[in-house]
Amino acid sequence: MIADRAACEALDRADPLAGRRALFDLTPGQIYLDGNSLGALPRAVKPRLDAAVQAEWGRDLIKSWNTADWINLPARVGAKIAPLIGAAPDEVIAADSTSVNIFKLAAGALKLRPGRKVIVTEPGNFPTDLYILQGLRDLMGDVELRVVEQAGLEAALTDEVALLLLTHVHYKTGRVHDMARLTAQAHAAGALVLWDLSHSAGALAVDLSGCGADLAVGCGYKYLNGGPGAPAFLFVAKRLQADFQSPLTGWMGHAAPFAFGDDYAPAKGVLRGLCGTPSVLGLTALEAALTVFDGVDMADIRAKSMVLGDLFLDLALARCPEFGLGCSRDAIQRGSQVALTHPQGYPIMQALIHRGVIGDFRAPDVLRFGFTPLYVGYADVWDAVEILVDIMANEQWREARFHEIAAVT
Amino acid sequence: MIADRAACEALDRADPLAGRRALFDLTPGQIYLDGNSLGALPRAVKPRLDAAVQAEWGRDLIKSWNTADWINLPARVGAKIAPLIGAAPDEVIAADSTSVNIFKLAAGALKLRPGRKVIVTEPGNFPTDLYILQGLRDLMGDVELRVVEQAGLEAALTDEVALLLLTHVHYKTGRVHDMARLTAQAHAAGALVLWDLSHSAGALAVDLSGCGADLAVGCGYKYLNGGPGAPAFLFVAKRLQADFQSPLTGWMGHAAPFAFGDDYAPAKGVLRGLCGTPSVLGLTALEAALTVFDGVDMADIRAKSMVLGDLFLDLALARCPEFGLGCSRDAIQRGSQVALTHPQGYPIMQALIHRGVIGDFRAPDVLRFGFTPLYVGYADVWDAVEILVDIMANEQWREARFHEIAAVT
Repeated sequence: MIADRAACEALDRADPLAGRRALFDLTPGQIYLDGNSLGALPRAVKPRLDAAVQAEWGRDLIKSWNTADWINLPARVGAKIAPLIGAAPDEVIAADSTSVNIFKLAAGALKLRPGRKVIVTEPGNFPTDLYILQGLRDLMGDVELRVVEQAGLEAALTDEVALLLLTHVHYKTGRVHDMARLTAQAHAAGALVLWDLSHSAGALAVDLSGCGADLAVGCGYKYLNGGPGAPAFLFVAKRLQADFQSPLTGWMGHAAPFAFGDDYAPAKGVLRGLCGTPSVLGLTALEAALTVFDGVDMADIRAKSMVLGDLFLDLALARCPEFGLGCSRDAIQRGSQVALTHPQGYPIMQALIHRGVIGDFRAPDVLRFGFTPLYVGYADVWDAVEILVDIMANEQWREARFHEIAAVT
Repeated sequence: MIADRAACEALDRADPLAGRRALFDLTPGQIYLDGNSLGALPRAVKPRLDAAVQAEWGRDLIKSWNTADWINLPARVGAKIAPLIGAAPDEVIAADSTSVNIFKLAAGALKLRPGRKVIVTEPGNFPTDLYILQGLRDLMGDVELRVVEQAGLEAALTDEVALLLLTHVHYKTGRVHDMARLTAQAHAAGALVLWDLSHSAGALAVDLSGCGADLAVGCGYKYLNGGPGAPAFLFVAKRLQADFQSPLTGWMGHAAPFAFGDDYAPAKGVLRGLCGTPSVLGLTALEAALTVFDGVDMADIRAKSMVLGDLFLDLALARCPEFGLGCSRDAIQRGSQVALTHPQGYPIMQALIHRGVIGDFRAPDVLRFGFTPLYVGYADVWDAVEILVDIMANEQWREARFHEIAAVT
C-alpha cells in the first residue's frame, strides 16, 4: 500500500496521462472528483465556442450550415466518440439528450422485434432509464416492463422479450455489468440489448463491437467533458441500421431534409436517429472537448482509473474505518468511481466541498467520488483523503452550514 | 409609395425600434433578411456565454446547478418567452427541439382526448411537423392522420379528431392562419389545437391566451435569436397542465428528480414537459438573446414588420416585374417574411448573397426574405431592392458560380 504523498508524486511523474491535465482549465486548490457528474472544462472549448459564436453565427450566419459544416456536426462528433466505445465511426451520432435517445432506441427495438412486447431492466437503474420506459409503456399500452434484480436477469429473458436495457456502470455504486455475457444471453433469447454508457463512455475501455452490442446511448457531459447539458450520443450497430425506425422522425433524420417533402423517408444509416435541428453550440463545445482524447489509449485511462479508485479506498478505509463501502472493492467490477457510505454522508460531503474536495452525495447515505484519469492525479487522491481524515477527526461536518440542503444535491 | 432612399431614412429616424439595432452584432455591409431562418447575434450573448463557460462550468462546476440556478433555466427562459406569445410565465418552458416538443404535445393530446384517434393537419406544413406525426402514427399503429388543404380544415374536424396541428405562419409563403377562428372551430368539434409558432414567435403579436389556445411549440433560433440549434419552447395551457402526460418522461420532468426514485411521477405544471438534462449552454445563450425584447411592445414589432414587407414588395415588384408573388400582398395575411418567385430563383438568390443581401431559396422557385424589425431598417430594404434590380438588369445571376448547389440551401 502507498504509504505517503511522495509515493503518489512518483506515480504522477510516471503517469503516461500526466500531460493531459494541462488540457483542462482546472480551479487551483480544488480536487475535482465529480467528473462522473459533470466533466471539467477542457481548454480547447472556449476558443472554439468563441469562434462558433462570433465568426460562424455572428458573421456567416446561415451560410455556416455549409461553410462551417454545421450540418454534419452530429455525425462528425459521433465519429469522434465512436473509438472511445468500440464502435465504427458511422455507428454513432451526437444528438438530443440521453433520455430522448433512450426513447428512440427502446421504441426502435420494439419495431425490430415485432410480436415481442416485453422490455427487461433492473430496479435502481439510473432513474431516467426507468422513467423513459414507463412513459413508452404508458404511450403504447401493450408494452410490459419486467423490472428484475441483476441475479434474475438471465431468467427474465424469455422469448417475449424485445429488449434488455441496462446501464453499463451503475450511477451510484459504480458496479460494472458484464456487457459481453449479458448481450450474449439476450441474443440467445432473441432479444436486443440497449446499453446506457452514461457512466462508462470516456472512462472504461468499452467495446460495443467486440461484445456484439446492438444499441447504446450515453452522456456527453460526464467523462466526455462536453459541458453542462451537452448533447448525448446514440449507437445503432451497422447490421440493424437499415431496419431501425426511430419514433422521433424529425426533419434532420430525413433522407433529404432540404427537399422539404411532405412524406418522411429515413436517412441512410445511423443518421436516421437524428430528430430536430441539432444544438450547434452544444455540439461545437463537445467536439472541442473530445480533442482531449486525441491519441489516448482507453486502456491507459482504464488502468489509471482502477489504481486511483483502489488508492482512494485503501487510504480512506484504513484511515477512516467509520465509513462503509458502497461499491465493489474489486476495481474490475467498478467504473471510474467509488462510493463510501456514512449516516452523515450529506454534511460530510458538504464539508469536503467546502474544503475544495468536490464529490457528490446520493441518498440515503452515499458519498460518491469519481476519478477522471485525464485530470485527476495520484497526489490529488492523497490530498483528498488527508482532508477527509481531518474533517472526520475534527468533526467539522457538524457545523450547521453543512446541513443546509441545496435544491440540487 | 416610397419614392427614394431619403424617405426610407426618414422612416428609420422615426422608428421607435431603431435603437434596438445596436443590440445586435451585425456584419457591416450586409443586409440580413434571413432572420426567419437564423436570427442574428445579439451582443448580450457572448459575454453571458463566456461567463457560463468560464465561471459557471469552469470554476463552479456542478455547484452551478444551485449557484447559477441552472436547474431553473428551462422555466426561467420559458417565462421570458411567455409574454411574446400571449402566455402566462408558468405555461412555457424552453427545452429540446421543436420536433421533439411536437412529439410530446401531439402524443399528450391523444391522451387528453381518449377514444379519439385522428390528428388533422395540412399538406405543405413545415416538414418536421408532418414527419413527427407520421412517426407517432407508425409507433402507435391506431392513429389516423388526416392531411387536408386549408379550405377543408373545418370540415375535417369531426368528432373523431383529437388534435389539429397547424403552423401559425407558413415557412415558405408566410401565410398566417387565423388562430382564434381555427382554435374555436377545433374546440367546437371537441378537439385540441397545437400551434407551431416557429415562424411567428418574436415577430407577430401572438396571443395564445386570447385565442384560447391549448398547446404550442416554437423555435428558439429564428426570431428569438437564440443561436444555431437553440433550444425550442413548448406551451401547455394552464387548464390542461394537470392532465397533460408527456410520452417523453425523462428525469427532469419528474416531480422530484433528485430523489432518484424508480417510479415516474410528473412534475407540477408545465415542468412535466421537460425530458432529459437541459442544454445549459444553449439555454444560457437563448436567455441572453431574449433581452433584446426587454421593454418592446410586440405590436410595434408587428407594425414595422408589415411596413417593411410591403415596402419590399412595392419596390421589388414595381422595379422587377419579372418576379412572381409567392405570398399574400396583404400584410395582415403574412408573417414577417415575403416570397418572390422566379424560375431562376436559386442563382438569383446566390447572386444576392454574394452582394451581401442574405435571403434564402426554397424549391422550386421561391426567394424568401425575412424582416426582423429589431435589426432591419427601411433603408436596408431600399438598398436590398437596389441590389436586386442591379443583379436582374445585368443578369449577374447567369454567372456559373451562382448555379453551384450547396449542401444546405
